[in-house]
This record gives sequence, structure tokens and C-alpha cells, in this order.
Amino acid sequence: MSQEVFVTMALNAWNGQLKRATGTFESLTDEQLMQEVAPGRNRAVYLMGHLIATHDALLTLLRLGGRLHPELDEIFITHPDNVNTKMPGAQELRQYWQEVHNKLAEHFKALTPAQWLERHNAMTDEDWVKEPHRNRMSVLIGRTNHIAYHLGQLVLIKK
Amino acid sequence: MSQEVFVTMALNAWNGQLKRATGTFESLTDEQLMQEVAPGRNRAVYLMGHLIATHDALLTLLRLGGRLHPELDEIFITHPDNVNTKMPGAQELRQYWQEVHNKLAEHFKALTPAQWLERHNAMTDEDWVKEPHRNRMSVLIGRTNHIAYHLGQLVLIKK
Repeated sequence: MSQEVFVTMALNAWNGQLKRATGTFESLTDEQLMQEVAPGRNRAVYLMGHLIATHDALLTLLRLGGRLHPELDEIFITHPDNVNTKMPGAQELRQYWQEVHNKLAEHFKALTPAQWLERHNAMTDEDWVKEPHRNRMSVLIGRTNHIAYHLGQLVLIKK
Repeated sequence: MSQEVFVTMALNAWNGQLKRATGTFESLTDEQLMQEVAPGRNRAVYLMGHLIATHDALLTLLRLGGRLHPELDEIFITHPDNVNTKMPGAQELRQYWQEVHNKLAEHFKALTPAQWLERHNAMTDEDWVKEPHRNRMSVLIGRTNHIAYHLGQLVLIKK
């Protein structure tokens, strides 16, 4: 039972931050998405693509299946924000946001506490035996903090 | 054993975010602490006081003992940032930062997994039976995301 409590807590934290981020992006117009969070810093649209790409990568990192949008990594992870980069339009990104998070929600609902404690893909079985706290759940906790980090920046966009 | 793995993960996340925040504040000069993270937004010094006050309040919220600096709430939680507010100096805040986090680290080390799952102070025993995932650990997870949120803003300070 207490294992389930821990999983519930971690998923509540993920869902809570994700809900706030979703609400923030929904509250921004397509024009506001093109604003920088602070002078010379990332635009909201870049942070949106960055979170989509990072979360899409969870599908393979957590060994849940194939990715939906690996093409986003080059634009939103490998390279910094640049107004000259050709990127998907706002409507397309809003759709990807839903797709990727719906797919993740499906998988997360199906994982048992024991499966949450299994190693992630960037780790060997051998390392995992020595460091059992480096597992799917620890990746989720890290990604939850990653949302919060960028959410703190997103709320600086002037409406 | 697996309960300990969950506690280790949550504490690793807290310690990781706290270490990044500590490093960021240490990297800022006292002058830079007076800069706003974005035009018209909070100054770094306010975020520092805000995190100290929030974490000091964990001492009572997690039922670990008395607070060290309850006087900070009025300045850094109740009221928004204001250049006319009289606040402790940078050196004083840097010292409070260490004090509060050393005290919390002591307590956190001593808590067993079962104690992490006990209710926090803002909750009745009755509610906790119905919602066992609202416990000390869930508060810690929330506060870890809270550090990440403000850290995302702090890194916008120009050096």
C-alpha cells in the first residue's frame, strides 16, 4: 500500500505542474507565444516546443514505446532559440502538446509501482542494482521539476 | 526496502534543486541580488528571502520544531516585492539561508520512511486517513518544485 502512496504523490506532482503549464500556454495568444520571457531570453514558443520534445523523449527513456515527434529535438533541444529557425506553427505545437501528454497519461496509468521502480533506458541493469533509486520514477520527478523551472519563466510573459 | 528508495528519490530531488539554488545565489554579488529577474518583476533578493521564509515554515508545517525566522513571512510571503520595504541585508540573508537549510537537513536525515508518510501539520488525522498521499513527503515534493520554479527565474539575472 505505501508504495502506491509514493506513486500517487509523484504522479500528483507531475499532473499538477503539467496542468499549470497547459493552462499557461492556453492563456497565451499565438502572438504572445512569440514574446521573450525576458529581454534576450527564450520565447514562450521555444519553451513550449522544448517541453514537448523533452516529454516526447520520455516515451523511449521510460521504455514505453516509440516517440511521436523526434524531429523536434533538433529545433528545441539541440539548438537554442533563434528567430531565424524554421519551427512548427503555434497551432501545430498546441496539437503536439495534447498528443504527447495524452500518450504519456495512458502509459503512466498502466504502470504498477514495481514497474515505476524499474530502470530507465539510459541505465544498465548492473548500474541499476547498485543505484536502485535511478529508475523511471526518479526520471519523472526530475521532469516535474523541469516543468516548474520553465513555468517560472513563462509566467513572466506580459499579457 | 522500496520505501527507502522512494524517500531517497524525493530527498535527492530536494537536495539537487536546493544545491542549484544555493550555487546561483552564491554566484550573485550583493549588487546583482538587487536586480529584477525581468522588467517590473521580483528582485533576486526577494526570491532569496521568499525561499528562506517558505523553507523556515517547513519546520512547523512538517512538525519538526520551532521556526528560526518567522519575522520574514511579512516581508517575503505576505507582501510582494517593493523597493521601499525595509528588509534584512544581503549578508544577513545569506546567513539565514545556511541556518535554515542546515536545520532542515538535520531533521530530514533523522526521519524514517514511515515518518515521511505521516500527516503534515495543516491536516487533521481524519483527513489524512482518507487522503494518505497528503503527508510530509508530498509537502517536500511540492516545495522542491517551488524551488525549481523560482530558480528558472533567477537564472535570468544578467551577470
